[in-house]
Amino acid sequence: MYGLNKQLALRVTTIFSVSHQRSIKPHLRAVHTFLSATKMDAAQEAQKREAFRQAVVNTLERRLFYIPSFKIYRGVAGLYDYGPPGCAVKANVLAFWRQHFVLEENMLEVDCPCVTPEVVLKASGHVEKFTDLMVKDDKTGTCYRADHLLKDYCKEKLEKDNNLSAEKTAELKHVLAMLDDFSPEELGAKIKGYGITAPDTKNALSDPYPFNLMFQTSIGPSGLSHGYMRPETAQGIFVNFKDLYYYNGNKLPFAAAQIGQAFRNEISPRQGLLRVREFTLAEIEHFVDPEDKSHPKFSEVSKLEFLMFPREDQVSAKQARRIVIEEAVSQGIVNNETLGYFIGRVYLFLTQLGIDKDRLRFRQHLANEMAHYAADCWDAEIECSYGWIECVGIADRSAFDLRAHTDKSGVPLVAHEKYAEPKEVEKLVIAPVKKELGLAFKGNQKMVVEALEAMGEKEAMELKAALESKGEAEFRVCTLDKVVTIKKNMVSISKEKKKEHQRVFTPSVIEPSFGIGRIIYCLYEHSFYMRASKDGDEQLNVFRFPPLVAPIKCTVFPLVQNQQYEEVAKKIAKSLTAVGISYKIDITGTSIGKRYARTDELGVPLAITVDSTTSVTVRERDSKQQIRVNVDEVASLVKSVTDGVSTWADILWKYPTHSS
Amino acid sequence: MYGLNKQLALRVTTIFSVSHQRSIKPHLRAVHTFLSATKMDAAQEAQKREAFRQAVVNTLERRLFYIPSFKIYRGVAGLYDYGPPGCAVKANVLAFWRQHFVLEENMLEVDCPCVTPEVVLKASGHVEKFTDLMVKDDKTGTCYRADHLLKDYCKEKLEKDNNLSAEKTAELKHVLAMLDDFSPEELGAKIKGYGITAPDTKNALSDPYPFNLMFQTSIGPSGLSHGYMRPETAQGIFVNFKDLYYYNGNKLPFAAAQIGQAFRNEISPRQGLLRVREFTLAEIEHFVDPEDKSHPKFSEVSKLEFLMFPREDQVSAKQARRIVIEEAVSQGIVNNETLGYFIGRVYLFLTQLGIDKDRLRFRQHLANEMAHYAADCWDAEIECSYGWIECVGIADRSAFDLRAHTDKSGVPLVAHEKYAEPKEVEKLVIAPVKKELGLAFKGNQKMVVEALEAMGEKEAMELKAALESKGEAEFRVCTLDKVVTIKKNMVSISKEKKKEHQRVFTPSVIEPSFGIGRIIYCLYEHSFYMRASKDGDEQLNVFRFPPLVAPIKCTVFPLVQNQQYEEVAKKIAKSLTAVGISYKIDITGTSIGKRYARTDELGVPLAITVDSTTSVTVRERDSKQQIRVNVDEVASLVKSVTDGVSTWADILWKYPTHSS
Repeated sequence: MYGLNKQLALRVTTIFSVSHQRSIKPHLRAVHTFLSATKMDAAQEAQKREAFRQAVVNTLERRLFYIPSFKIYRGVAGLYDYGPPGCAVKANVLAFWRQHFVLEENMLEVDCPCVTPEVVLKASGHVEKFTDLMVKDDKTGTCYRADHLLKDYCKEKLEKDNNLSAEKTAELKHVLAMLDDFSPEELGAKIKGYGITAPDTKNALSDPYPFNLMFQTSIGPSGLSHGYMRPETAQGIFVNFKDLYYYNGNKLPFAAAQIGQAFRNEISPRQGLLRVREFTLAEIEHFVDPEDKSHPKFSEVSKLEFLMFPREDQVSAKQARRIVIEEAVSQGIVNNETLGYFIGRVYLFLTQLGIDKDRLRFRQHLANEMAHYAADCWDAEIECSYGWIECVGIADRSAFDLRAHTDKSGVPLVAHEKYAEPKEVEKLVIAPVKKELGLAFKGNQKMVVEALEAMGEKEAMELKAALESKGEAEFRVCTLDKVVTIKKNMVSISKEKKKEHQRVFTPSVIEPSFGIGRIIYCLYEHSFYMRASKDGDEQLNVFRFPPLVAPIKCTVFPLVQNQQYEEVAKKIAKSLTAVGISYKIDITGTSIGKRYARTDELGVPLAITVDSTTSVTVRERDSKQQIRVNVDEVASLVKSVTDGVSTWADILWKYPTHSS
Repeated sequence: MYGLNKQLALRVTTIFSVSHQRSIKPHLRAVHTFLSATKMDAAQEAQKREAFRQAVVNTLERRLFYIPSFKIYRGVAGLYDYGPPGCAVKANVLAFWRQHFVLEENMLEVDCPCVTPEVVLKASGHVEKFTDLMVKDDKTGTCYRADHLLKDYCKEKLEKDNNLSAEKTAELKHVLAMLDDFSPEELGAKIKGYGITAPDTKNALSDPYPFNLMFQTSIGPSGLSHGYMRPETAQGIFVNFKDLYYYNGNKLPFAAAQIGQAFRNEISPRQGLLRVREFTLAEIEHFVDPEDKSHPKFSEVSKLEFLMFPREDQVSAKQARRIVIEEAVSQGIVNNETLGYFIGRVYLFLTQLGIDKDRLRFRQHLANEMAHYAADCWDAEIECSYGWIECVGIADRSAFDLRAHTDKSGVPLVAHEKYAEPKEVEKLVIAPVKKELGLAFKGNQKMVVEALEAMGEKEAMELKAALESKGEAEFRVCTLDKVVTIKKNMVSISKEKKKEHQRVFTPSVIEPSFGIGRIIYCLYEHSFYMRASKDGDEQLNVFRFPPLVAPIKCTVFPLVQNQQYEEVAKKIAKSLTAVGISYKIDITGTSIGKRYARTDELGVPLAITVDSTTSVTVRERDSKQQIRVNVDEVASLVKSVTDGVSTWADILWKYPTHSS
């Protein structure tokens, strides 16, 4: 049964993958932390992280960046709404994703349903293998994730038990590191061995067993047609490969992309916005000739240098280090140019959104994390208060997905390469003589025929030689589980020269897969800071969103409540709408300082204060610097900053600063 | 049981509403058609429409505007993918929706999960009443929609049976008109009476029974927590009312909006892209004081004139007629200004997308179509080959939804209006004396107390009078289903004057709800036409999408395959990307005519043919007019047309036409 957990590797190179893959690294890291720090340091560090997270999360909830879904009904674990500013941030992130990937790379975007029939997810392996291991409270039936309980036990022991022997400490650390490699039996034995009980009741627990993470439903009224809410968007692209290839003029490479909802019925969601039951994925499937994985635009990213964490460095307990992507490819650290190209593009995408490049690393999957068919796999991990979080998976999945659907559907999902001129190839031809085989094997004839036809070149040529020298030969038929005697007249084996006009092959797929909600959450943490108020008696919250991401681009404040100023404010508002800039007017009589603080908390980059009828004050969020601008110029100034045409520094060069 | 179908009215003012509401009008129309045309005319007309639809649908499928989902597995009825051009059209429609409604009206956008716990949909009434009537093949178990079978039977009889008596004809027409008003029993009796059997097997059918149209699932691992895939996005907004009201500074009116997937497990989907099991909805909930439904921006739409079809005109078998929206409101045809404002805004939205204004009408719901609580309801209906299709519902739903969630959750979803100065109001005070009631009624005390407290003003004052004159009175307690004697000492009833500082009330909600997929399908039909090829031997397909909607804004064709031209093409491509214009380069050696035809079929508005290194030819899709433009100017010219800054006529005025 050890293999069961291993089988999870079937489709787990994406982010949000099943437990086996997704948690090995944090454990390794946890172990390193333990090794390098005293218990006191670690506890203080954890407390600091927790306090920071609370400050961020409080601000996010209070300003409705997100809302626990169905709150008035006491909510549902793992489901969250985006409130108005969160929704705007999400729309901005998705619009930039579409610009950066779909438009700039001429990708074919598709939009497929969430409701998916069982057959598709059987082919992909999800029905059988998309599971987490679960234990139940023997008496109440409450369910827990088995690995979570074991992890909590080990961590608590290590953190709080001061009488642990060195041997026991080493053992617990080993368990943490191995957590995702355990079979259900091993996991069950550990839980029993440590005497772990249900956290809420202290009742005994069942043995661990797999729980499928897909939301199940039924399509149509009969109840006979099983379906699931898709656990990822990728399958919708794979099943359309044939049409998309045709749409692309039967040419490779090309990429298809999809943005949409995905669903995973987590056993017991933790980690707030990071582990949810419904989330937005943005996935790219780049189809490429397996014999040529170069990328024509690689030179555009090749000089980028950023934190990478190759497999070998992880195994030898080193740290992530800065590598130029070109070197990573040429040294074979990254498997191929196309994979390297996407790693570079993902780096640009994340940092342009505002992710701190020093808390972003590309971590290569370890051999035991990677599916057997995968050529290579890298996760973009972002460090936040929960540790290093997998936010984008970039995998070379070889031909696995297209082959799986070819096999299940019978529709060949293949590409063709026409040769400039026909090629002469030598082909093995195995021709069983059915009449003779029928006489000899009767009811077993079909199995023998199939076994003969399935021979590889080496085996076939050996059989041919044996038949020619001895007239007969022993031959093993797997499906009959026995050895039969094949005579010379029962099969003809030869090599024939054929002219081929084209090569037919299954493309490889390189898949960058983005967990949009996770990226946004990390962005919140990386953008958040606190600073003292003017009079120093209060800590004020600020989100330093780049204009690209900011939910609202600017605010308009009439300095005092008076009709003249309000009219100027309305005029400015109109000109902002005309150039497509979102804004918020605040005409409350609140002090200007309070109004600045309010919009700093929403991450609004620029504030326009109307303090005369001809010119106004424009204030930048982070520097708090102010300039004076004519009423007629202000909309185009704001636009040039928020569109990224000018930086604030450019603006300052043109307009002298002004002290309020 | 007649009430059952009626109850469907609970939440059916939106588009895609349950059968009761959604099909009454097509039937009425069908009846009118029958009355006004001979059978031959009707049959020819139907054939023509069918042929037109086939031409559109063939083009759409061939060019991957849409793809039947999971096609390689033989698909699933009612599920469709958007392929690359369809996906781009959808993104354009949604971006325009967001601009036209969310941004221009400063709406609060939210984004809630599709997975919804049962309690929310119990409160909304969907668990109990969101059903269609179904019959089963007695032997095979195949399911059919009961009303569909009866409708098909009547239509076929009327179309093909030439020996129908006048009486029978009238009867069948009456059945068609009444189809959605039948109770399950009446529907069953008709099916039995006409001897209708299962279409595929001719087996007998079961009695009709309600089938809930929501996809059911289970949240979390226990299997005990029922959930559904949301059938609409509106509930996510209602349950967040309290937070959104606070976010808006506790001020009314304000609107919240949501774009997202919705799911309906149709019994047997028909009508291609119009009746699907998963679709994108865009919904607005505009919360307003029930005592003031004026709209500050009404004057911006008030002079618009378009086809309206008021209730009275439908009942008296008139046609839709052009009405100025201002007059519709002032004459009381449309219930209030806010409803009128949104009708106007929806008209602008649809016609700017390219919906033909002569095939767009606003039809008012008949009294029997409308939920009992609704103040008024209008559907934007678009005529296509399937008839008049409900694409947007615009309903004044009064306080129903907020009250339903207040009752179920116990959280008051209300608004407050502070009075400028406190108001003196007279309030009814009913104070049951629990001790006396307890002695008199023992275990029934609670029910008597509740009944007394629930009295309206009139009933209470009558009881008070009776108690004062006779010392006791008979009093009916519904929950006990009996009459009890109440004595003077058991309750005190009085009117007290109180000072109130604010008014607390449940806001009304005005809900425009858009079926994005239906709008897009109608847009395809309204944009499609065929024209002869240059040599006249072929009919070519064209989509006359406005630039706003077009999936690709322009194409770039090097006239002949040569390096110089291809470099110019690349230079133009780069300048198009820089100004954010999507394009497609076609460097195949195909004739320029064929390349034009290909992109006309995708609805690309402008084509740039590179036929020199300094200037190029720009060709407009519908007029086929061509102008010559400098290479350096072409990107900004294309942008000005596709952004709507210039029309093609403006361009022609500046650049003389050019014959190729």
